[in-house]
Amino acid sequence: RTSSGSAGMAKSKFEYVKEFEVQDTCLRNCWVVVRVDGKNFHRFSEQHNFTKPNDIRALQLMNRCAKNVMKELDNICIAYGSSDEYSFVFHKNSNWHKRRASKFMTHVVSQFASSYVFYWKEFFSSQPILYPPGFDGRVVIYPSEENLKDYLSWRQADCHINNMYNTVFWALVQKGGLTPAKAQERLRGTLSADKNEILFSEFGINYNNEPLIYRKGSVLIWQKVNEVSKKTVKLSNETEEQEVEVSRWRTEPVLLHTDLIGEQFWEEHTAILSYR
Amino acid sequence: RTSSGSAGMAKSKFEYVKEFEVQDTCLRNCWVVVRVDGKNFHRFSEQHNFTKPNDIRALQLMNRCAKNVMKELDNICIAYGSSDEYSFVFHKNSNWHKRRASKFMTHVVSQFASSYVFYWKEFFSSQPILYPPGFDGRVVIYPSEENLKDYLSWRQADCHINNMYNTVFWALVQKGGLTPAKAQERLRGTLSADKNEILFSEFGINYNNEPLIYRKGSVLIWQKVNEVSKKTVKLSNETEEQEVEVSRWRTEPVLLHTDLIGEQFWEEHTAILSYR
Amino acid sequence: RTSSGSAGMAKSKFEYVKEFEVQDTCLRNCWVVVRVDGKNFHRFSEQHNFTKPNDIRALQLMNRCAKNVMKELDNICIAYGSSDEYSFVFHKNSNWHKRRASKFMTHVVSQFASSYVFYWKEFFSSQPILYPPGFDGRVVIYPSEENLKDYLSWRQADCHINNMYNTVFWALVQKGGLTPAKAQERLRGTLSADKNEILFSEFGINYNNEPLIYRKGSVLIWQKVNEVSKKTVKLSNETEEQEVEVSRWRTEPVLLHTDLIGEQFWEEHTAILSYR
Amino acid sequence: RTSSGSAGMAKSKFEYVKEFEVQDTCLRNCWVVVRVDGKNFHRFSEQHNFTKPNDIRALQLMNRCAKNVMKELDNICIAYGSSDEYSFVFHKNSNWHKRRASKFMTHVVSQFASSYVFYWKEFFSSQPILYPPGFDGRVVIYPSEENLKDYLSWRQADCHINNMYNTVFWALVQKGGLTPAKAQERLRGTLSADKNEILFSEFGINYNNEPLIYRKGSVLIWQKVNEVSKKTVKLSNETEEQEVEVSRWRTEPVLLHTDLIGEQFWEEHTAILSYR
Repeated sequence: RTSSGSAGMAKSKFEYVKEFEVQDTCLRNCWVVVRVDGKNFHRFSEQHNFTKPNDIRALQLMNRCAKNVMKELDNICIAYGSSDEYSFVFHKNSNWHKRRASKFMTHVVSQFASSYVFYWKEFFSSQPILYPPGFDGRVVIYPSEENLKDYLSWRQADCHINNMYNTVFWALVQKGGLTPAKAQERLRGTLSADKNEILFSEFGINYNNEPLIYRKGSVLIWQKVNEVSKKTVKLSNETEEQEVEVSRWRTEPVLLHTDLIGEQFWEEHTAILSYR
Repeated sequence: RTSSGSAGMAKSKFEYVKEFEVQDTCLRNCWVVVRVDGKNFHRFSEQHNFTKPNDIRALQLMNRCAKNVMKELDNICIAYGSSDEYSFVFHKNSNWHKRRASKFMTHVVSQFASSYVFYWKEFFSSQPILYPPGFDGRVVIYPSEENLKDYLSWRQADCHINNMYNTVFWALVQKGGLTPAKAQERLRGTLSADKNEILFSEFGINYNNEPLIYRKGSVLIWQKVNEVSKKTVKLSNETEEQEVEVSRWRTEPVLLHTDLIGEQFWEEHTAILSYR
Repeated sequence: RTSSGSAGMAKSKFEYVKEFEVQDTCLRNCWVVVRVDGKNFHRFSEQHNFTKPNDIRALQLMNRCAKNVMKELDNICIAYGSSDEYSFVFHKNSNWHKRRASKFMTHVVSQFASSYVFYWKEFFSSQPILYPPGFDGRVVIYPSEENLKDYLSWRQADCHINNMYNTVFWALVQKGGLTPAKAQERLRGTLSADKNEILFSEFGINYNNEPLIYRKGSVLIWQKVNEVSKKTVKLSNETEEQEVEVSRWRTEPVLLHTDLIGEQFWEEHTAILSYR
Repeated sequence: RTSSGSAGMAKSKFEYVKEFEVQDTCLRNCWVVVRVDGKNFHRFSEQHNFTKPNDIRALQLMNRCAKNVMKELDNICIAYGSSDEYSFVFHKNSNWHKRRASKFMTHVVSQFASSYVFYWKEFFSSQPILYPPGFDGRVVIYPSEENLKDYLSWRQADCHINNMYNTVFWALVQKGGLTPAKAQERLRGTLSADKNEILFSEFGINYNNEPLIYRKGSVLIWQKVNEVSKKTVKLSNETEEQEVEVSRWRTEPVLLHTDLIGEQFWEEHTAILSYR
């Protein structure tokens, strides 16, 4: 920008307020996790007629937003989402925006929120979006790979617990004709095995056959994909242009619905945590 | 939520990762300012054909988003915006989300970002939005009213400096036929008076007649507005329904384009900083 | 310092660790309070035969240390102490060590601790110090004068409560012959008036006649004191040297035992909080 | 403590100020380093006639203080000092005082400072201490063992660089008769090899024969030591008491002057960083 006379004066008088800003650097050599959560999504999902217990359109929209966040921002090495939340992991060596926590948080959450409205109609063609939703975000720092893996395992374990509960709860309500209050009462104190049993014996549902995206949530990692496109070229030994297929390798966020808990996932995808 | 057997086990093992989250409480009895800035808006404005030096649609969209933020979040007592930035002031007595800085930041920035896409078509009817924009946000804390007023004065002084420069710059380019490089060169080292002179003598523009929204930016404060609506009622002594006008007072964010620098504004609007 | 060849190499390899240090700036325009507390002083006071309920030597030593802290460090405008704790207030305009919290804390606490051992024998001539005591410290930030005064009032109210309790407790034990357990039981649930009554009717003690240093604690503020010293001079109209008294004004930490609660103290000492 | 009537009132009114204290938890699973530095020790060393370039009494006193800090505080697994500074490493699993940075800092620095005055006369029998010295302290957090080792290597590399420089500098001044200014000039731009050469050819000093405590600084680690003491006992089959030697294993801070840079030290002392 530029400064003029009056500007100079104005600056000298007020600009001291900049010094009240404080450094909020994330500790170096640590994994930086930003978790985004939908604000009042219980109400939002009802007003937009989300199917229960899972609305595949809503989950796909979340994944589309997360993919956009990964592409627009730098140094995200893995993301994990389920329900109305998504976690983004910045690599421990990232020096993006000098590792300022506020930058990590606000860039993720704003990109996610604007994407949510932008891509809405791709997934909800017959349901208009009624108002702009809010999200909250937070930063958590993990010093070791083990801590980071345990964080992701924690989110996936949570996904599992919630999804099993919701699956039985909505089966009791939608197919069993119970009121929500009765369904809740029925499930109080039940163990995992009890819920499996209810699903199977009363509704013929084998929980393990439920879609992976519901049971495991969604993982986004970078992978090389072979992109094939058509191009019109004139080869040197010919006189006319012709259309050819050109392929090239691109690194893209790729969606998985798989187990993060345990070592197998990490052994198969060593590139995630290694230096980029 | 609920917990089942396997969930219990999963929890006990991974849930320790929650303890890595740190408290980021904003100091009590201080004004909390969240400033939102458009990310790469130079590029965004070009790709969406914003008029230069000011695009009234873009400014109105920003104001619309800011109004939505004020209504959706709690305890914002004043907001100020210009160009692609907006500052929101949470009252010093606010205890919203226990004054966590991350909550203030991410709620503001996500609500602003989703609103930007949501309300876009109300202002850009003939220009579709091409991609979801990003915003960054930060929190700054001010202990005294004087510091807070100086912060807002700083932003408004900045608005003035930038707008005067841009007004002359684009006059030289659009009306004077200069290349951007030549216009920049012409303006190097010029004072405020010089810029006024160029505008007036070369382009017949009196800078002080430029619209206030460009010169002063936009202020949002809460005001009581009288809302009149029509209602169909059946009065007791009549047999037929009839339509009557009903009025009631509502507190709404109201837009001003006025001077914040100096005491007059604050003397006229003492309610802004007093206890709510 | 200097660097040699091998040093240069060593530096380039290890010096990155400096970047892990984080900024801990105290918010500007706020009062910075450092409170020092004796570590395990219950045990320390027993092993050094402190008289109960108050040991005047110990309190004078605390005051001596606090005075030293005020003189060795910069920008402390008032200090308040009672029992084994002392609070130091750095002026809100202080920019000492760039307002780093760690600097405020560690300089205060280390100067206090070394002074405690250094000045010990001035107050405990017949009781050697048996081991070096520890202290802990903390920083608390107050944005307004009112908050700061309330902080000091809080500490003085605490002093009052504790001293009244201890005065009765030790009267019951030392003069009334009760065991500590019995004395504690006797005092359970008693109000201030009850304690006054016990002191007066059973031991003939009027609590309000107890020394102010016990009831109010100790305040240190800067005051101009007239320092008189003797100097040997030869006046121009005389032939021989003679000794004269020379006086000059110096600003010194001065000890008060007075009420901080209420406005009177602050009205009488406006210089404390005004700009230095 | 207890509360009486007036106390209750006082509390309700002022106690809110406690809420201004902020959490300053050190990130879990990270090594916490507290470094103590003498304040104005250049002046202190001159006023107390420290020998140059190294005063063995001063170094031994520093080591004595550091040993006391290790014994009085919990969870320090290694300490390293040279000149007027000392670094203390709290184990990454430590939960001492809930990992509050202010507690780590102030306990270390106050214990160090009081010990310095307390133990002074054990090392400076003929030189009284003239005033209580100050120290400053800081906390730095390291997430990985590699970072921690590099921190200690950095301090030892610094010790080496400074000691070599000081050794030559003071040889030039004390034995070579140069003024300090001339000595400084002579050394400007010299490499390690140059300094070795000056020492050897001009003063017959082989730097590598200088005492390890000067060249490598001091390391304190916990080791089992066999403590032998005499005890008077009466054995069952005898009629008279007799004096016997009793030995038992105790874990004590043990002083080393050795190389920390490189893996050998850590391979020989694996217990330092392993769980305690």
